[in-house]
Amino acid sequence: MEIISDPGAMRARAAAARRAGQRLGLVPTMGYFHEGHLSLMRRARAENDVVIVSLFVNPTQFGPGEDFERYPRDAAGDEAAAKAVGVDVLFTPSAADMYPPGYATFVEVAGLSDVLCGARRPGHFRGVATVVTKLFQLCRPDAAYFGRKDYQQAVVVKRVITDLNFDVRLEILPTVRDADGLALSSRNSYLTAEERTRATALVRALAKAQGLFAAGEKRVSALKAAMADILAAADARVDYVEIVDGDTLAPRDAARPGDLVAVAAYVGRTRLIDNTILGGDELEPR
Amino acid sequence: MEIISDPGAMRARAAAARRAGQRLGLVPTMGYFHEGHLSLMRRARAENDVVIVSLFVNPTQFGPGEDFERYPRDAAGDEAAAKAVGVDVLFTPSAADMYPPGYATFVEVAGLSDVLCGARRPGHFRGVATVVTKLFQLCRPDAAYFGRKDYQQAVVVKRVITDLNFDVRLEILPTVRDADGLALSSRNSYLTAEERTRATALVRALAKAQGLFAAGEKRVSALKAAMADILAAADARVDYVEIVDGDTLAPRDAARPGDLVAVAAYVGRTRLIDNTILGGDELEPR
Repeated sequence: MEIISDPGAMRARAAAARRAGQRLGLVPTMGYFHEGHLSLMRRARAENDVVIVSLFVNPTQFGPGEDFERYPRDAAGDEAAAKAVGVDVLFTPSAADMYPPGYATFVEVAGLSDVLCGARRPGHFRGVATVVTKLFQLCRPDAAYFGRKDYQQAVVVKRVITDLNFDVRLEILPTVRDADGLALSSRNSYLTAEERTRATALVRALAKAQGLFAAGEKRVSALKAAMADILAAADARVDYVEIVDGDTLAPRDAARPGDLVAVAAYVGRTRLIDNTILGGDELEPR
Repeated sequence: MEIISDPGAMRARAAAARRAGQRLGLVPTMGYFHEGHLSLMRRARAENDVVIVSLFVNPTQFGPGEDFERYPRDAAGDEAAAKAVGVDVLFTPSAADMYPPGYATFVEVAGLSDVLCGARRPGHFRGVATVVTKLFQLCRPDAAYFGRKDYQQAVVVKRVITDLNFDVRLEILPTVRDADGLALSSRNSYLTAEERTRATALVRALAKAQGLFAAGEKRVSALKAAMADILAAADARVDYVEIVDGDTLAPRDAARPGDLVAVAAYVGRTRLIDNTILGGDELEPR
């Protein structure tokens, strides 16, 4: 496995592969790999000649007071894990190379960026859209692989690809969960053992909404109230619970199949997110 | 010469040329070609295997009340002119294809977009940065050719290319002028004969600044006052007269070689712009 840190070298490597007619797959990550990341890499491996994994804790998608500084990092572990699943290139640029002095250009997606996590994290999706644009230009992938746990991110990236005419196929893969249903996240590493137990409230709340919807409850207010009860019982502080159109992220009064149920909640100091598609998931916490 | 209107067809045509190892040059334009446009096409022709000229009056770079609707258009004349200088592909997308319903993504350059023309035309450079990004993705040029008359545009595009890691070489070509010094512009077609004569005040003001600077005058206030006098004498209403750093567009108190002298003024209802680089131009109105 090659490790490339210099953006110019990454660009040259990808361009050479393209010229040779090879198919390139890119998995953009912030590292601290778990099975969710690895599932993306395995899919990319199965579908491409060259698999590039970018590992970059992107400062522009963190707000003031967020966890950029303490975001978990494990360079050696990530390197071993990526190598083990057959990644060809691990791209590890520095923030100084990605955002040198004088840097001034940002990609913004109106509307989709301003709801759910975007409303709570101003500038977050601007940072995501910008870094993904940069990574696409440097790595020139045929396909890019993202996880569905970051559902809004996937919707924003899809919009960027369509609107800016990027020649990239977007692949969104299912959320990978622990045995008790908790969605895998690098941020789970922040949780104490006791918080880890309480954190299952997010997936239990989503499963509750699925169950009620399957039983005929369509009122968004009722579905949200039932979810809030479960989160409150686990002492998880709700950041938001929303049921929205799965494509446009527009709010609903009456839920329909295909709608997104999204939750963000603090368990202790740690902010966790999870989501499900009404009628579209097997979501039984085990 | 091929004429391609469909963005998908343009993308396929450019990708095929790239795969064949051909060098692509792009000249982005809003049409109504004059000798300035043609000079860009000729340079592109000399340096590339495939020359693409985009002709798109981009709605997102016009503000409310600006001249989008009446911007001059001459499809047949442009086609003949492009063909005559050996252009391979004339790309003429529709606004509906470039900005379909649901379009939401914009490229913004902070700082550089907010001074000079950007201060008077909010959103203008956002529209420019966005459409140039889209054209680069569709046409995949090795080099893109712009005129120096739109100096700030060139600085903004350069910033976008650098910041977003576009693999495009930027070529900025000299302003082409009429015999009396007036910078060629599609908008000159708005001028009456009487206004056309008065419009030379812009280049005469720039030449005055060059002359005073060459004679030792460094005070920006004095240089600007001398320019304002010439514009006022021609009854040209000043939108701005500025002397700024040629790279950062930051204002100066004392002028230095390499600084940009930029003017925007209304002659009748028509807003015209022009510029010169201190110590860097032969700028004698003839």
